[in-house]
Amino acid sequence: MSFQNPVFIPGPTNIPERLRKACDMPTIDHRSPLFGQILHPAREGVRRVLKSDSAQIFIFPSTGTGGWETALSNCLSAGDTVLAARNGMFSHRWIDMCQRHGLGVEIVETPWGHGLPADRYEEILTADTGHRIKAVLATHNETATGVKSDIAAVRRALDAAGHPALLFVDGVSSIASMDFRFDDWGVDVAVTGSQKGFMLPPGLAITAFSAKAMAATDTATLPRTFFDVKDMAKGYANNAYPYTPAVGLLNGLNEACGMLLAEGLDNVFARHHRIAEGVRAAVRAWGLELCAVSPEVYSDTVSAIRTPEGFNATDIVSHAASAYGVAFGTGLGEVAGKVFRIGHLGSLTDVMALSGLATAEMVMADLGLDIRLGSGVAAAQDYYRGCRIETRKAAA
Amino acid sequence: MSFQNPVFIPGPTNIPERLRKACDMPTIDHRSPLFGQILHPAREGVRRVLKSDSAQIFIFPSTGTGGWETALSNCLSAGDTVLAARNGMFSHRWIDMCQRHGLGVEIVETPWGHGLPADRYEEILTADTGHRIKAVLATHNETATGVKSDIAAVRRALDAAGHPALLFVDGVSSIASMDFRFDDWGVDVAVTGSQKGFMLPPGLAITAFSAKAMAATDTATLPRTFFDVKDMAKGYANNAYPYTPAVGLLNGLNEACGMLLAEGLDNVFARHHRIAEGVRAAVRAWGLELCAVSPEVYSDTVSAIRTPEGFNATDIVSHAASAYGVAFGTGLGEVAGKVFRIGHLGSLTDVMALSGLATAEMVMADLGLDIRLGSGVAAAQDYYRGCRIETRKAAA
Amino acid sequence: MSFQNPVFIPGPTNIPERLRKACDMPTIDHRSPLFGQILHPAREGVRRVLKSDSAQIFIFPSTGTGGWETALSNCLSAGDTVLAARNGMFSHRWIDMCQRHGLGVEIVETPWGHGLPADRYEEILTADTGHRIKAVLATHNETATGVKSDIAAVRRALDAAGHPALLFVDGVSSIASMDFRFDDWGVDVAVTGSQKGFMLPPGLAITAFSAKAMAATDTATLPRTFFDVKDMAKGYANNAYPYTPAVGLLNGLNEACGMLLAEGLDNVFARHHRIAEGVRAAVRAWGLELCAVSPEVYSDTVSAIRTPEGFNATDIVSHAASAYGVAFGTGLGEVAGKVFRIGHLGSLTDVMALSGLATAEMVMADLGLDIRLGSGVAAAQDYYRGCRIETRKAAA
Amino acid sequence: MSFQNPVFIPGPTNIPERLRKACDMPTIDHRSPLFGQILHPAREGVRRVLKSDSAQIFIFPSTGTGGWETALSNCLSAGDTVLAARNGMFSHRWIDMCQRHGLGVEIVETPWGHGLPADRYEEILTADTGHRIKAVLATHNETATGVKSDIAAVRRALDAAGHPALLFVDGVSSIASMDFRFDDWGVDVAVTGSQKGFMLPPGLAITAFSAKAMAATDTATLPRTFFDVKDMAKGYANNAYPYTPAVGLLNGLNEACGMLLAEGLDNVFARHHRIAEGVRAAVRAWGLELCAVSPEVYSDTVSAIRTPEGFNATDIVSHAASAYGVAFGTGLGEVAGKVFRIGHLGSLTDVMALSGLATAEMVMADLGLDIRLGSGVAAAQDYYRGCRIETRKAAA
Repeated sequence: MSFQNPVFIPGPTNIPERLRKACDMPTIDHRSPLFGQILHPAREGVRRVLKSDSAQIFIFPSTGTGGWETALSNCLSAGDTVLAARNGMFSHRWIDMCQRHGLGVEIVETPWGHGLPADRYEEILTADTGHRIKAVLATHNETATGVKSDIAAVRRALDAAGHPALLFVDGVSSIASMDFRFDDWGVDVAVTGSQKGFMLPPGLAITAFSAKAMAATDTATLPRTFFDVKDMAKGYANNAYPYTPAVGLLNGLNEACGMLLAEGLDNVFARHHRIAEGVRAAVRAWGLELCAVSPEVYSDTVSAIRTPEGFNATDIVSHAASAYGVAFGTGLGEVAGKVFRIGHLGSLTDVMALSGLATAEMVMADLGLDIRLGSGVAAAQDYYRGCRIETRKAAA
Repeated sequence: MSFQNPVFIPGPTNIPERLRKACDMPTIDHRSPLFGQILHPAREGVRRVLKSDSAQIFIFPSTGTGGWETALSNCLSAGDTVLAARNGMFSHRWIDMCQRHGLGVEIVETPWGHGLPADRYEEILTADTGHRIKAVLATHNETATGVKSDIAAVRRALDAAGHPALLFVDGVSSIASMDFRFDDWGVDVAVTGSQKGFMLPPGLAITAFSAKAMAATDTATLPRTFFDVKDMAKGYANNAYPYTPAVGLLNGLNEACGMLLAEGLDNVFARHHRIAEGVRAAVRAWGLELCAVSPEVYSDTVSAIRTPEGFNATDIVSHAASAYGVAFGTGLGEVAGKVFRIGHLGSLTDVMALSGLATAEMVMADLGLDIRLGSGVAAAQDYYRGCRIETRKAAA
Repeated sequence: MSFQNPVFIPGPTNIPERLRKACDMPTIDHRSPLFGQILHPAREGVRRVLKSDSAQIFIFPSTGTGGWETALSNCLSAGDTVLAARNGMFSHRWIDMCQRHGLGVEIVETPWGHGLPADRYEEILTADTGHRIKAVLATHNETATGVKSDIAAVRRALDAAGHPALLFVDGVSSIASMDFRFDDWGVDVAVTGSQKGFMLPPGLAITAFSAKAMAATDTATLPRTFFDVKDMAKGYANNAYPYTPAVGLLNGLNEACGMLLAEGLDNVFARHHRIAEGVRAAVRAWGLELCAVSPEVYSDTVSAIRTPEGFNATDIVSHAASAYGVAFGTGLGEVAGKVFRIGHLGSLTDVMALSGLATAEMVMADLGLDIRLGSGVAAAQDYYRGCRIETRKAAA
Repeated sequence: MSFQNPVFIPGPTNIPERLRKACDMPTIDHRSPLFGQILHPAREGVRRVLKSDSAQIFIFPSTGTGGWETALSNCLSAGDTVLAARNGMFSHRWIDMCQRHGLGVEIVETPWGHGLPADRYEEILTADTGHRIKAVLATHNETATGVKSDIAAVRRALDAAGHPALLFVDGVSSIASMDFRFDDWGVDVAVTGSQKGFMLPPGLAITAFSAKAMAATDTATLPRTFFDVKDMAKGYANNAYPYTPAVGLLNGLNEACGMLLAEGLDNVFARHHRIAEGVRAAVRAWGLELCAVSPEVYSDTVSAIRTPEGFNATDIVSHAASAYGVAFGTGLGEVAGKVFRIGHLGSLTDVMALSGLATAEMVMADLGLDIRLGSGVAAAQDYYRGCRIETRKAAA
């Protein structure tokens, strides 16, 4: 393992030096007051990153998948119905989890590459006059397709329908990288992990619960212990966990929030947008297309890039790894073999992004695709330079 | 956080330098072959530490509590009955988890300080001619009381009763520190975490399943996704996880197994026994008693020490932390305030243990207990020296 | 290398976690402004630790020995005479260096275990009416014997004699652990290293020059390039070095100064004194004697302990290492085989010190010395407890 | 300090993860046998990297400049004459050091950008029938100009003249990156540092002495203590140093040699050549010229690139740092403002190199130079791809 080149998978991301060191911590007594000095600021930091005044933050030694399970098992009961669109691998998996936990799922099949259909949600919710639907699932950013959805529109759909269902949002590959407004959007449970926008190693499921979601835990009967938020809340009140917390990762999370908030959330989001725009400029220069069908759904954290008919996009990923030691993401599910993915989230610079683009060009050329070397790099360079010049003008 | 003194909590343990470095890893692509080079040896190493030829090892980004849930949710269905003894806080919590997951629990109340009553198990199992009981729960080492139980005897009870129930063993604070024989004892599911005998930070639930336990997953209907072992098995077959693995901890686990197996499991167990015996010699010299009622149940990983009537044992823990920067464990549940605990597992030397004993002496003296300074230290020194002299004699 | 136990050598010391991390730094451009943000605060921090308003601080990628050479080669010319007492191995070596660099040395032979004879200095300086003596060498703390000398008295000797010689002070094992007053004592060149009171890995020679010492560099003709302070000063003025600086160690030094100044120098010195007093209490309890002949010369950073006639003290060091994995210091030069040394400087707690004492007891007992196990530990415990009780009283 | 982008200074280089961890070591007793287990293999590894069977390796806590001083002060006496060519900043500095140490220097002024004039050396040495010249200085790789010289030719000049002078070679920016043949070339003293081809932090002067150089130490009278190789040899014989060694860096050096030798020295050199050729292809594509005047003197570790008349090349370095967070090297001495330098040595991949080239293009475009974005990147990509295709063909 040479660890010399950056990774361009859509998470886990490259880990900043500061966070490597914050996580790499000797053992402390997790039942001592010291632990509270890590836990509480970390939770507070997450709350601020989510732009919420009142969400309760629960952090489990787990992953985003565990976060999904936290949302379901704490707020729902077997037999309940949820509404969900399937527009990629991760929305698919969450739906599958619902079904395995005995929930009925009203599935809105949505073409991969498209965002969540808020209008269809509104129709269905409006029709559900009996309020059979207890929760609406929304994947903010489909990591498999590089598609961002409009959560505010989903909230409007709920409001227009006057429907009391809870709104669960998977923000695994958006939170801390793209704008997320827990309070403004009326989110009830938000879910993410440590290894994306927070730039940490994997190992934490990070969840936020609204007061309405907390109230739902009183009646929800799905079995839960490890992921029980009330046990967690009781623990937190005593500076503790109901079991052994992942202290080092929590320390890293605290530090990560500090970094993000010091940079300024708007700057963080603008940086992700800038780097993503450069990657998209390169894709255009290559004459390729994104899986995401239109600019308003382009993701600022990952680009899924369609390769020509008859070409196995997965070869790009394996050749990049073996020939150049660089990791990209493969296509998953419906788009397996049809797309490769460039992750551009977390700790990344323009310069790092350019090295990924340069590698992708060599790889595609090696594999016989008609790509002019340097073409995508030049398009991205041009964009990145322009941003700096604009910045200077704006400042002047 | 000064991190200068060792910790003497019963886990997370002190982390060896080598393992700190193994865990502190830059991001790799967890869907690349590189990951298999970490995952498979780590699982193989755990299997060998468990003295099993055929157990299937499943490792989750979670904790021991998640491991308990893995055992239950993969092998059992709501309404099933399990047999369990309650002789400490951790056996209590596992029972509570069963109940919250809709299982009936036949509870054998057992005085705290005593081991599991294999004879009572045998009676109950023999009486259960209808095989209503689907699983027997056994806590190998009660971390709350410092009590080791005889798992081989539990197996004999099952065999004597000719009962087909599965045997689930909580080895969280025993595995990799005390002898554990998955195959010989006919264990069906064993559960531990990364932060005890494996000397790593918390964040992994480590489980082992027998063929019989795997077969039970076919019919078990408790809901599960995050902790589903079949999803995990499918992932492993492709060098992958069903979600994002905790790569750094797995790399650490691989290294930890390498360290343990290179030292030799018997040497590891003997080392734990030696250090524990020194601590127990100190306790005797202080004129205090262990919570564990007799030598055959003395734990080699943690000692719970009773303090005199009318004295709040928890004061020892808080005073040690504030005055000397040393962490001991408090009493939990029934023995809260009545015992304090010295963890002596994982990465520890005689010399480190002596510093813990010396601290405990100062603390108890500060708090007015009638302890002669140096008395426990001397008893432990005498024992540790003797071990070395015996070793030299044996070698000569 | 297990790295579990603390070391008890008189430097390099145990390195605090924070400083490990500060030193372990990726490469930066040492000719960029970033470097100045490390260099200047580090130099400023050292100046404050030395209690000087105006000393010029020069830091070389070298060791204390290189610091000695810096003092000599920048301020003196071949044929110059210096005055020095020889009362231990390190004062001996500095004298030897002088001779190898063509300097005449007026040596005051002083029994090992005694401090510098300021009165003899005064006599000699008074007699040196022609001011043949250009510099006076003074070892503040003789690491070989655990003897502290009175530098203020040496200054008074110079002043009483009205002698213009420069005062060079070896503070390698005193600075940042024991009180050092560059300005008050009229020191002209002070020398130390990174690996003692600053608690860092070895690799830096840290020197301080008075205005008078700087003036002497104008006429000094000993050859110098690597250790030339004027080249260094010129570099510093441009945020740079005349060659490649040890950036990580400088970053660590900056952090170390921050830690020391935040704790408060007086508290740092009091902590060293307290820990040292505990060690000395143990030595008394063992019935042994220090090499240092009287309390006013007892060093707070290292104790050299005489063993009984006929016993080879070096065996203690080798047995401690092989049987218990603990490092003590051997005797050097005249006292080789007659003393062993316990280093108690830098990053150390009472609890760590007790583990060293407990080990020493086992070792001495193993080797047949008449030592009662626990006796020294108890004496130290008693002292350490008393300090805390006093502190509480004082605070109340 | 974000540490996200690689550095492109000609040393210190990017440090591989493995070496970061090897250097970041807790304190051990440097007078214990443990230390010998680090020291001896490190010295042996260096010897093998130098392709020598018998050189004595001496390693100081210092830098390359200290290595120069080691060569001079151990082998020469004040008043001795040395022969040296001045063709760049580093050869200039070594000459300056000679003069400051009282040596006469026969200087062969050589245009910057040219290699050492072995023919002029031969003429001068042949004319020196009285063997007034005691040593010949040769800078293998002029870091300031990116010029490699032919050391074998210098040896042939000495042999042709039948001259007994010692051959001192500065291999600071060549050793471990470019072929170096201590024995074949009859080198008497070779000098390098830890922070170049060995990929470590700065802090070690690494020197190699031939038997003839060792013999010269018997009569050399320049003063020396810190850099005395005989003191060092005596220390090594006892697994020790004459003072405190930089243990962590030595541990890193041992590991670095292991990495280099495992990769194979020829592969290491070929890798450096490949990366350098890609950089040079980019320079050609930009329409710029190297400071090095012809291919046979092109350095494989650093390229100094001339910018157009009237343009301040130093602006490239400062703009790259401030706008893109990337470090290049400035021009030094005669070529200050006329060249900027791209370091391409040590731990570097094609992919990392491309990110440096892409950055340089943006910077030059920002500053108004007529550079087509992507042009240099494409030329380098083309070359790097070709190498891989050639490799595949060769293997087939």
